[in-house]
Amino acid sequence: MLVYFNGKIIDKSNVHISPDDRGFLFGDGIYEVIRAYRKKLFRSADHFDRFFRNLEEVKIGGAQHINYEKICEELLERNNLLQDAKLYIQVTRGVAPRKHSFPMPAVPPTIYLEASQIFPPLDLWQNGVKIILRPDQRHQRCDIKSISLQPSVIAIQEAAENGAEEVIFVKDGYVTEGSHTSFCMVKNNQIITYPLGKSILPGITRKVIQELCLEQAIDFTEQYVSTSELPTINEMFILGTITEIMPVIQVENTMINHGKIGTITRKLQQAFRSKIAQL
Amino acid sequence: MLVYFNGKIIDKSNVHISPDDRGFLFGDGIYEVIRAYRKKLFRSADHFDRFFRNLEEVKIGGAQHINYEKICEELLERNNLLQDAKLYIQVTRGVAPRKHSFPMPAVPPTIYLEASQIFPPLDLWQNGVKIILRPDQRHQRCDIKSISLQPSVIAIQEAAENGAEEVIFVKDGYVTEGSHTSFCMVKNNQIITYPLGKSILPGITRKVIQELCLEQAIDFTEQYVSTSELPTINEMFILGTITEIMPVIQVENTMINHGKIGTITRKLQQAFRSKIAQL
Repeated sequence: MLVYFNGKIIDKSNVHISPDDRGFLFGDGIYEVIRAYRKKLFRSADHFDRFFRNLEEVKIGGAQHINYEKICEELLERNNLLQDAKLYIQVTRGVAPRKHSFPMPAVPPTIYLEASQIFPPLDLWQNGVKIILRPDQRHQRCDIKSISLQPSVIAIQEAAENGAEEVIFVKDGYVTEGSHTSFCMVKNNQIITYPLGKSILPGITRKVIQELCLEQAIDFTEQYVSTSELPTINEMFILGTITEIMPVIQVENTMINHGKIGTITRKLQQAFRSKIAQL
Repeated sequence: MLVYFNGKIIDKSNVHISPDDRGFLFGDGIYEVIRAYRKKLFRSADHFDRFFRNLEEVKIGGAQHINYEKICEELLERNNLLQDAKLYIQVTRGVAPRKHSFPMPAVPPTIYLEASQIFPPLDLWQNGVKIILRPDQRHQRCDIKSISLQPSVIAIQEAAENGAEEVIFVKDGYVTEGSHTSFCMVKNNQIITYPLGKSILPGITRKVIQELCLEQAIDFTEQYVSTSELPTINEMFILGTITEIMPVIQVENTMINHGKIGTITRKLQQAFRSKIAQL
């Protein structure tokens, strides 16, 4: 597999991360995941906007001048990823002797990009998935796509061990988002999701859904939903760059809508698929 | 520099971390720092107890059978670190294609140890330091020495840019601990520090101080101290494996005890030094 590493496209086996890389020592980096359909990047401008904003938030410099889009396209091409692929992009604060504060003087960031084939989860889109709920033990800036992800790892593992596809975090009694997805609910034909802010990632797919709702005349509203309100919810789905729109039919041990996928969820899935078909 | 990497002692330049290492991708690892005085490890049993407990907490297996103490001693010896040194130990969940949940089947952990010379901060011990206060934006399990440290990095950098040695975190209005130190205060000849629990690391030096207090008949108590109480505090110091006992003479723009180091702080520094001399 050919990957991009600090200015060059090389075989992945030749990528050597230093033990002094601040990604390895401190989780001190930012990442993005972009979906490619038929070699076309989907919503890359949104992804790179967020990526650059995040780098700025954590003050990682020296990584903003790169033409990431061009590298992504080259990786798709040279790895012969013709259909369904994802791009993984990670930038860390670089290599320096271990000290918590930023290296002084600054060192070049570590820049890594990889493209790989994915297998769309057709059956999960069709049949829906189970989720579990767990207290949100992550840090307080979930709007930043940081690689310091250990609390998410621990939580999603609990999901995996409980036969669930995703864990949805509960903060101050309200359901927020998943470990790597956004979370939407449907009540009285209205889409409800947690408000943007520091507690959740501003998901690109969430933004796409918001646009689709406008086109389809479906009401989209940001609102706090407490766990005690969950039994009154008609439909639920999780959203993500790779996840797309995945129906949720079970929360912990409770079936949603008797395990049947709701009409709004199906409508949005169709609209999303049409959008992709037109790419 | 000779280091330990996955079973071998090799030159550091030959350590190649994979871009698929879960330390690099997810900050999914645990670390420890141990102080060596004259080639003798200080309180290594306490450090390894915590280390093994932490690995268990995050369910990283396959790293518990190693004789870390022996490796540490070999690294000190072979790197000719005769006087003041520190051991850095990091274990990650290993190398696997990027997926949030644990690799299935499990993969061997990545185990890395490094020994390096340190230069004791004699002037700071003597003259004291400034600290700043910031809201605690870290994750909710600060008792675990996780390498997912980006929120700490961002906070300590603010300290560095404000001419301060450390940032002390404020949680729900109470001062808790530093980004890489414990925090103690003295009021009416009594040592006060934040109670053990999920909000702070159970510091080994904190434990040593607790023992020294017992020996010196100084009252040591765990108590919540709000930021508004700080002006009534007589002495403060930060604690850590490398930091040892470092007096604090300034909090933000306010001098503590007119910038003079208090008698209890000096007494504990002396007692600590005697303990080290007897090693």
